[in-house]
Amino acid sequence: MSDKGVLTVISGFSGAGKGTVVKQLLDKYDYGLSISATTRSPREGEQDGREYFFKTKEEFEQMIAEHQLIEYARYVGNYYGTPKEYVVQQLEQGKDVILEIEMQGALHVREILPEVNLIFLTPPSVDVLEQRLRGRGTETEEVIRDRMARAKEECSYMEKYDYIVVNDDLDECVENVHRLIRSLHYKREQQEKFIKKIKQEFEKR
Amino acid sequence: MSDKGVLTVISGFSGAGKGTVVKQLLDKYDYGLSISATTRSPREGEQDGREYFFKTKEEFEQMIAEHQLIEYARYVGNYYGTPKEYVVQQLEQGKDVILEIEMQGALHVREILPEVNLIFLTPPSVDVLEQRLRGRGTETEEVIRDRMARAKEECSYMEKYDYIVVNDDLDECVENVHRLIRSLHYKREQQEKFIKKIKQEFEKR
Repeated sequence: MSDKGVLTVISGFSGAGKGTVVKQLLDKYDYGLSISATTRSPREGEQDGREYFFKTKEEFEQMIAEHQLIEYARYVGNYYGTPKEYVVQQLEQGKDVILEIEMQGALHVREILPEVNLIFLTPPSVDVLEQRLRGRGTETEEVIRDRMARAKEECSYMEKYDYIVVNDDLDECVENVHRLIRSLHYKREQQEKFIKKIKQEFEKR
Repeated sequence: MSDKGVLTVISGFSGAGKGTVVKQLLDKYDYGLSISATTRSPREGEQDGREYFFKTKEEFEQMIAEHQLIEYARYVGNYYGTPKEYVVQQLEQGKDVILEIEMQGALHVREILPEVNLIFLTPPSVDVLEQRLRGRGTETEEVIRDRMARAKEECSYMEKYDYIVVNDDLDECVENVHRLIRSLHYKREQQEKFIKKIKQEFEKR
């Protein structure tokens, strides 16, 4: 195994269960954490560098300008984003990092960190996708139609991802994604240090 | 899982144990077979299409000319090679195929079948490589020095492989390679059929 961590971004259709899959991966296995930066005020009990990195608007906009964010978005007047430095630190400490990011943001990550592995989670069929959205029982007919229309559009994104994992059975899907990430350690790009070591050992003879 | 098989080529330093690893993979798991073509005469009990595809020199040279061979070599006056058609058939039947090929031949496979995954097996260190070569107890000092010199040259090939797997403990290495190959099913290129299916399902709505 290489000593450097593997960076993975997970995206997928709304209803593909990516939130649950990522949560279970983080609960069950020893993945590195990613802490977001935000311009919103800390709530009671929240600590800088634990729940969030709390930034002023000016600081955040400087981070954007200096490409210090892997991705960011504006939501209800505040910025939210993933600082690159913290993720890179985790990777250098040998921790695998998983980020759950929507599709447009995910493709942007590759520009900032080219070594990223993009995983697309999908239900086994469109019928199952619809069943899952309906099964929640919390969405109106309009919301479901809206999500299905968006999924249809998002479909073309699949071709830009590195890996497609079908989420049929949740537990199986969690194991499959985990094993995939473990296997990504064997990628040559992850093994640069080892290759260098072996080359040096040969040189010394 | 995709219904198409994954094609893997395994190479590595002499002494990396690739022969043993490949043999155990084929023994333990349900991989597709690869049958070589040869111009040598069948021995007693050998059947065409079982041990080998037996070809005349003219047939074999035509196969070379028509790029029907994944790789080939001449050995003691006879040709030996891997017919592309048979491997492709196995892949289309959903069987994963492992080929053990030396380094120059391995890189050539990519030209014929671009979807191939190239795995490089290596001992954890140069010292361990030498210990293993000596440990066999069958090689003269000259042969060992020769192999070590060759390994030093072959070192640069590592950078052309897709995956580097360290063979420290044999059983672990077999499992690691097997899990890697299972994970390669998630590659987008392997999932083209599934992507098409999902797209068609959306189109029909």
